[in-house]
Amino acid sequence: MKIAVDAMGGDYAPGVVIEGLSLTVQEYPDYDFVLVGHEAKVRFYLEKYGLADNPHISIFHAESVCEMSDPSAIALRGKKDSSITACAKLLKEGKVDAMVTPGHTGATVAATKVLLRTLPGVDRPALAANMPSQPGRFLLMDAGANPDCTALNLEQFAVMGEIYAQYLFKKERPTVGLLSVGGEDIKGCDLTKEAFKRLEKLPINFVGNVEADTIFEGVADVLISDGFAGNVLLKGAEGLAKSTFVWLKRVLKKNTLRYVWAMLAANVFRELKAFGDADNVGGAPLLGINGICIIGHGSSNPKAVLNAIRVAAECVNFRLNEKIVAGIKAANEANAQRAAE
Amino acid sequence: MKIAVDAMGGDYAPGVVIEGLSLTVQEYPDYDFVLVGHEAKVRFYLEKYGLADNPHISIFHAESVCEMSDPSAIALRGKKDSSITACAKLLKEGKVDAMVTPGHTGATVAATKVLLRTLPGVDRPALAANMPSQPGRFLLMDAGANPDCTALNLEQFAVMGEIYAQYLFKKERPTVGLLSVGGEDIKGCDLTKEAFKRLEKLPINFVGNVEADTIFEGVADVLISDGFAGNVLLKGAEGLAKSTFVWLKRVLKKNTLRYVWAMLAANVFRELKAFGDADNVGGAPLLGINGICIIGHGSSNPKAVLNAIRVAAECVNFRLNEKIVAGIKAANEANAQRAAE
Repeated sequence: MKIAVDAMGGDYAPGVVIEGLSLTVQEYPDYDFVLVGHEAKVRFYLEKYGLADNPHISIFHAESVCEMSDPSAIALRGKKDSSITACAKLLKEGKVDAMVTPGHTGATVAATKVLLRTLPGVDRPALAANMPSQPGRFLLMDAGANPDCTALNLEQFAVMGEIYAQYLFKKERPTVGLLSVGGEDIKGCDLTKEAFKRLEKLPINFVGNVEADTIFEGVADVLISDGFAGNVLLKGAEGLAKSTFVWLKRVLKKNTLRYVWAMLAANVFRELKAFGDADNVGGAPLLGINGICIIGHGSSNPKAVLNAIRVAAECVNFRLNEKIVAGIKAANEANAQRAAE
Repeated sequence: MKIAVDAMGGDYAPGVVIEGLSLTVQEYPDYDFVLVGHEAKVRFYLEKYGLADNPHISIFHAESVCEMSDPSAIALRGKKDSSITACAKLLKEGKVDAMVTPGHTGATVAATKVLLRTLPGVDRPALAANMPSQPGRFLLMDAGANPDCTALNLEQFAVMGEIYAQYLFKKERPTVGLLSVGGEDIKGCDLTKEAFKRLEKLPINFVGNVEADTIFEGVADVLISDGFAGNVLLKGAEGLAKSTFVWLKRVLKKNTLRYVWAMLAANVFRELKAFGDADNVGGAPLLGINGICIIGHGSSNPKAVLNAIRVAAECVNFRLNEKIVAGIKAANEANAQRAAE
């Protein structure tokens, strides 16, 4: 197992990434890692975390970085020597089995689409975000790779999502729902109404339209959406969770008694926070790309980096992409047959 | 002031609606109310809440009810005698100044569009939801009236939203943001990219693209969106808030000490809950309809009914629709002038 890790990705790179790698080599001592980024900076942190002589770690120099503020297209065109582009090239050339970046989602989607292309039969890749629900977790896809989608894209997301959810949730027939604005079949926007008809015909466990409130009650294992609404759901949940803790602090600071009480209960709040903690998940696979690519949160901490690398290794071991190619082939053939009839 | 109240709307009608009216008549003893719904049922609850002899309350019989599970179009076409349709007719005929329904959003939008039409120059109405942010509140529109929108619709939402926010937040120049998937100007989907160009040209305090996480930090007073993504944000926030309390209960029930501790802190959780409490807002105006129409949450409690009626009266007193007509006229003229140049 050899994984390219974008050392320059995320808000606290490269320090956090290499600290995360120091956790990873303890858990996966046999894996090999290519740290992609500015060599001098990477070397400094490898020394700092005692990894300078680790035979499983090599450095691949990349001159530039896609800053979080760079527009995706410009990041790709203008920064051909960026760490993200270099990761994608290593993956394309077969020099690594997977890539992990806690960086710029848009630039990663753009770079992997151009360099690696999508898997045979897949039109668009989708970011599969692992989110919390009351009974467990659900997979939201697309969480933001494609702001504009067609009904066919959504159909393919459903096929890919079912396959990944089978592995992730250890369920043979995970439930698949379509994000919409009403529970009834006929509700939705033009896109979801069209997608509904396609999802109905797939040999998946389709549970119909799902609203953004009930998904948190666990009504589906996989939630299919275009990347715009999906990103709104993901980011909205992040923003509200943060605000909830701000509001909680505000009511707790109203008097001294409450403040003392809150101090005593720090564990309660820590456990509550853990339900929504993206760092426990680590990263979202970009499903449908011809290569295993895991995108972590820009604010990833070392634990998140470790978890993102774990997700990458799991996808490789599961032979995820072979299964996706087979699933998409079957779906496309069924569509062609229906069109011919 | 005379307001039509859909007595049959919402999950707990007509009891909750009439209980809410009993609160309202105490606060607004001079207002007149037309309770629209099944006469015998309405009369039963008027007796129950001691309102049977109130000279300010009359009943308008409506035979049927739009159930929450009825599809909007069918609710409208198949139930011409529904309480929602009857409210819209009373409003159209000038027999009331405003209507309030804690009921079926889709059916209300459909009925008011057909019977009342939109205000001159307005293409589509938008549901303006008042939502919590860390520093205060923001107005989300469209929160779900139009699953599919054009860039022109979004432009008009911005014009209407600014006007309502001026009143609601007592700000002369409320900030207006565009819900998108990236903070940078060039990010978004086809619709938001097109809408961005239109919003830039409006004489409003436009702050550009806003992501679904930062809106909760209070980066804009008004958030413009199509009704699909807007509804996903609204419902997603509702769902996550509910789940957060479920998760909180779960960590609090882990041991007896925590449980006792939580009992002592019931006030804290009540205050926390109040931040997101839709009942304090009561209802969302359907802006752009030729008549004041307030739509409450289906699960409205009596306090929410009172607050929704208050919102209706405020919109009437503010002469909201006259201001919207003037604002839209100016925007449309500016567009025509630009097109001619």
